[in-house]
Amino acid sequence: MEPYILQDEELNELVVKIPGWEIKSKQIQREFNFANFIEAFAFMTKVALICEKYNHHPNWENVYAKVIIKLNTHDLGGITNLDQTLASEINKIFDQ
Amino acid sequence: MEPYILQDEELNELVVKIPGWEIKSKQIQREFNFANFIEAFAFMTKVALICEKYNHHPNWENVYAKVIIKLNTHDLGGITNLDQTLASEINKIFDQ
Repeated sequence: MEPYILQDEELNELVVKIPGWEIKSKQIQREFNFANFIEAFAFMTKVALICEKYNHHPNWENVYAKVIIKLNTHDLGGITNLDQTLASEINKIFDQ
Repeated sequence: MEPYILQDEELNELVVKIPGWEIKSKQIQREFNFANFIEAFAFMTKVALICEKYNHHPNWENVYAKVIIKLNTHDLGGITNLDQTLASEINKIFDQ
């Protein structure tokens, strides 16, 4: 999949298509909350495998039961279809 | 192990005892760099297990091959012997 920068209209659709994610300064971001650290890190492990599969990696942080994930496509300097796909996959993992 | 806040003298010793860590606004912090995301996340997985074992959890972030770990003892509002112990264990994992 060749990534391309999403235009305004596509970004408006994105926040509807992938619930929980918001657009913040040329990246998309979502906070995930869990019962404890074990649950949070188990989620991170699943996300890590998906990221490696897509060869697309997040800027993410964790404190105890909270995980914040930020996605953009550094090479293209913005939010792309690849970020949208990865965010959608991450939501699927969270919703399982 | 009952955690206690480290005093100035102990903090000065800490940065010598656990190389790479620096004191920043009531927490200790170190940046770890790896060859790629797989190596970085493998390290994070080992660190996660140690953190859960000590029931002491970091504020940490990752971007691709870089991991930044920040430790403090929130309940006591500063850097404790528990942070020092965990930082020392994390260094051992990194040095393996």
